Amino acid sequence: MPENSAPLPPVADLLGLLAYAELVAFDQMAADARLAPDLSRRAALSEMAAREIDAYCRLAERLRELGVEAEEAMRPYVGALRDYHDQTEPKDWLEALAKAYVGDGVADDFYREIAAFLEPKDRDLVLDVLHDSRHADFAAEELRAAIAADPKVANRLSMWARRLVGEALSQAQRVAAERTALAELIASGGGDVSDVQGLFKRLTTAHTARMAAVGLNN
Amino acid sequence: MPENSAPLPPVADLLGLLAYAELVAFDQMAADARLAPDLSRRAALSEMAAREIDAYCRLAERLRELGVEAEEAMRPYVGALRDYHDQTEPKDWLEALAKAYVGDGVADDFYREIAAFLEPKDRDLVLDVLHDSRHADFAAEELRAAIAADPKVANRLSMWARRLVGEALSQAQRVAAERTALAELIASGGGDVSDVQGLFKRLTTAHTARMAAVGLNN
Repeated sequence: MPENSAPLPPVADLLGLLAYAELVAFDQMAADARLAPDLSRRAALSEMAAREIDAYCRLAERLRELGVEAEEAMRPYVGALRDYHDQTEPKDWLEALAKAYVGDGVADDFYREIAAFLEPKDRDLVLDVLHDSRHADFAAEELRAAIAADPKVANRLSMWARRLVGEALSQAQRVAAERTALAELIASGGGDVSDVQGLFKRLTTAHTARMAAVGLNN
Repeated sequence: MPENSAPLPPVADLLGLLAYAELVAFDQMAADARLAPDLSRRAALSEMAAREIDAYCRLAERLRELGVEAEEAMRPYVGALRDYHDQTEPKDWLEALAKAYVGDGVADDFYREIAAFLEPKDRDLVLDVLHDSRHADFAAEELRAAIAADPKVANRLSMWARRLVGEALSQAQRVAAERTALAELIASGGGDVSDVQGLFKRLTTAHTARMAAVGLNN
């Protein structure tokens, strides 16, 4: 079955994307936890990974309510998300944290924007399952401490962050080309398609501020 | 610091072993989830992995109540559990399930026996965080179906299970030689040390029954 064959209701399309993103984030964080320099940091990241699965379960449950199997709703996104993660495998603990901080930051901002077009029930669910700030705070603190201890780290991680964003944009374009339901969702929800530029600008501004907050440069 | 330098209260010694076992089981199940043949099985195993972290958090919390850092209590077991998992890396989905089914089965039986020597509060905690039967049932069902579809699979997995048990016993002996606190726990709790043979017999009987239940032979 080709990846984009199943026509889903627009909201299921978004929930499927989010559900698969949670499943993959779980997987990635669980693997990253192995890179932790000690047991308490490893436990901290493992705990955060477990929260992704809780979020996954809630999204899968909502999809079932909508009469859609989670597997069916997630399938269109498998290729793009797998390729993103394959292309951006962290080599060490700091790269793993920078990826979580930068990548999840942009993704969460994006989902938050899209959630505004949903019915209240689904909007609240999406806003609720997005990463709590605990994860970003933990990553930011580790990154700041590492850069303070060795300022050269900032250059290496800034380059890494630019690669992450480039790879994410490339996969996002692929998804946008293959899936029109998300675009429909924005249109049907009263979203102004001409505001895509505005959306892009807001995401970029927030990303730049996030980078600066830990001492990385764009 | 040598692995066995810190003298801990006996109960912290057991809780530390269990906590680290949960952290490692999380890690292993999260990695095994990648071997799943489809997204729904992958999600099922990821969910089970997340439950291990919930258990870890409860054990770490109890250790803190006892005035012991989880990291300190876990440290003595890092070498043995890491070596066990390094020596028994599953090559495919069925090996991963057989490892979870056989290995967690024996380990849970062992913890359940030791829990009998604890004060009620800790005993209830340990019994509560042991794997619920959902995980074993899932693994058993998958193994039975695979053996029904191809009886030759039973031979390969039976050999694999024997290797798992051999490797686990070898690491258990290592832990027993390095850590006397668990032995003290049994003695102080009124446990009859001469019953170690009885314990061993009960574990072996339960293991044999578990193997037979899915069509594997000892």
